[in-house]
Amino acid sequence: MPHAMKNYRVAIVGATGAVGAELLKVLERRSFPVASLRALASGKSAGKNVSFRNQPVAVEELREDSFKNIDLAFFSAGGERSRKFVPIARDAGAVVIDNSSTFRMDPAVPLVIPEINPDDVKKHRGVIANPNCTTAVALMAIYPLHRAFRVQRIFAASYQAVSGSGAQAIAELKDQVHASAEDRPPTPKVYPHPIAFNVLPHVDVFLESGYTKEEMKMQDEGRKIMHLPEFRASVTCVRVPVYRAHSVAVSAEFEKPVSVDQAREVLAKAPGLELVDEPHNSRYPMPLEVAGKDNCQVGRVRRDCALENGLAFWVSGDQLLKGAALNAVQIAELL
Amino acid sequence: MPHAMKNYRVAIVGATGAVGAELLKVLERRSFPVASLRALASGKSAGKNVSFRNQPVAVEELREDSFKNIDLAFFSAGGERSRKFVPIARDAGAVVIDNSSTFRMDPAVPLVIPEINPDDVKKHRGVIANPNCTTAVALMAIYPLHRAFRVQRIFAASYQAVSGSGAQAIAELKDQVHASAEDRPPTPKVYPHPIAFNVLPHVDVFLESGYTKEEMKMQDEGRKIMHLPEFRASVTCVRVPVYRAHSVAVSAEFEKPVSVDQAREVLAKAPGLELVDEPHNSRYPMPLEVAGKDNCQVGRVRRDCALENGLAFWVSGDQLLKGAALNAVQIAELL
Repeated sequence: MPHAMKNYRVAIVGATGAVGAELLKVLERRSFPVASLRALASGKSAGKNVSFRNQPVAVEELREDSFKNIDLAFFSAGGERSRKFVPIARDAGAVVIDNSSTFRMDPAVPLVIPEINPDDVKKHRGVIANPNCTTAVALMAIYPLHRAFRVQRIFAASYQAVSGSGAQAIAELKDQVHASAEDRPPTPKVYPHPIAFNVLPHVDVFLESGYTKEEMKMQDEGRKIMHLPEFRASVTCVRVPVYRAHSVAVSAEFEKPVSVDQAREVLAKAPGLELVDEPHNSRYPMPLEVAGKDNCQVGRVRRDCALENGLAFWVSGDQLLKGAALNAVQIAELL
Repeated sequence: MPHAMKNYRVAIVGATGAVGAELLKVLERRSFPVASLRALASGKSAGKNVSFRNQPVAVEELREDSFKNIDLAFFSAGGERSRKFVPIARDAGAVVIDNSSTFRMDPAVPLVIPEINPDDVKKHRGVIANPNCTTAVALMAIYPLHRAFRVQRIFAASYQAVSGSGAQAIAELKDQVHASAEDRPPTPKVYPHPIAFNVLPHVDVFLESGYTKEEMKMQDEGRKIMHLPEFRASVTCVRVPVYRAHSVAVSAEFEKPVSVDQAREVLAKAPGLELVDEPHNSRYPMPLEVAGKDNCQVGRVRRDCALENGLAFWVSGDQLLKGAALNAVQIAELL
């Protein structure tokens, strides 16, 4: 006889956003045991419907009493709402999986990529944090290599899609492309400069050090997720005119001697990752190819020519899935 | 009384291409002493006109006898034509400035960026090579820092505009953007995959090592131009949906201790370079801003968090100008 499976009363905070929409689809697609679904969003979106299992679900305004009789709450509505409502949801008895950066570095909050540190989930006290999207995509390739060769530091540059900034940024790129065709000047709103036919070395806010917050997440979150307090990461995060899926160019230095053949073998076997590495046939990871896919892809694997024990490689991944919704549901599945 | 100035009989090979068009404009704009101009191209373009100093110049087919009575020949028509016709032009008595990669690593051919190694021009035996566009843009910032701190190695990732692949690639991006608006599938011809709303970690051909030829130019040409045989560069070259101007994210390691203030001072004074580095005001180099400008721009200067004596920074430059036409004319001015 099968186990009696628990069914969860689920709330999604930010149900009408780019990640919220993906969360609904991932819960459906993976047949997550949802007993009931509450869709929460700002007052502006209240009254709209979202669709779950072919049924309309009315969107309710997020309020302090929104979490009664909720077992599991997914938050993806920005840092400010998480700061205020995550503690409320937890105190109401829900386990929270938070996609914002608010609690990621809190020692009391596990920060989890299920393929890397699933056991950390067990230590939760009501809140589990979902990692930064660029960090998650890059670590999917860095961690298996770390297990084989012990990573020490990386140098990385990102190519980040506009959907990482939400639905408005997708509309902004679309509009600017039309504007260019019609010889209208672009009108930046989400970004400080035009994004169509441009690249912006500016993701998230600037710190005193000259790095952005986004850039330091690779090192800070990487240390916590991989349990590697000495891990160093120098990153430049760049927004590019791509709708969906982030890519990262990485040079990684290891403690042990590396071999490209062994690296390829390790990457080919890694969970949640596909090795796409036939450059002579023009096969390598690309955002257009990986968009909409659960697995991240890695390719362009080569011995780094400026490091002793180094590998250079290129990772792409759908940042709305592995970088957000998919990872969050995978965390819930661990519970 | 002014000097009697020599006037040069100039030929441009590839006069109808993306770089050829810029060469004509740069020669005009810098009042280069042109006595006569011969515009050369493939048979397909013969009969067309190009414009120089408001006069039409008939395009002639490139042939073995095209270089009679020519003092100075600019080549920008691809490696194959350079291989065949550069020796012919030189033997006919012209000094050749070649934009292809054919002769760059030839020990008998100087490879010159006038702001870096102008004296190398003197050693020429009829042929001078113009560097790779991405290399030229990156070295404009790396070399002044090298003079201050002695560069040892760099890790870099590029964001390269489609105009680097010529006029057809510009048309291809334009067409694919229209196709997307009209829900037509994109039809890649110049590139092996769609470039609109995508990024391709593939510029030039792949080598046995897994790097591309383009990626190794930074190290190989960098060594020759900076006279630094030990310089190491690990690069990932990536094509992005930008029309004009390349950008490069760099982490550089130096022999001497670095300071960000001193680095900024050095960069602000460097010839051909502008420091655009006010991140808190969202001011940093971007391709849309630098397109059409002679000077390269550098910004995002910060102490590299994964290197002992390291700096991270971001350079953008118009690769048709500093990366090609402007640099070629600057070489001619040195002669």
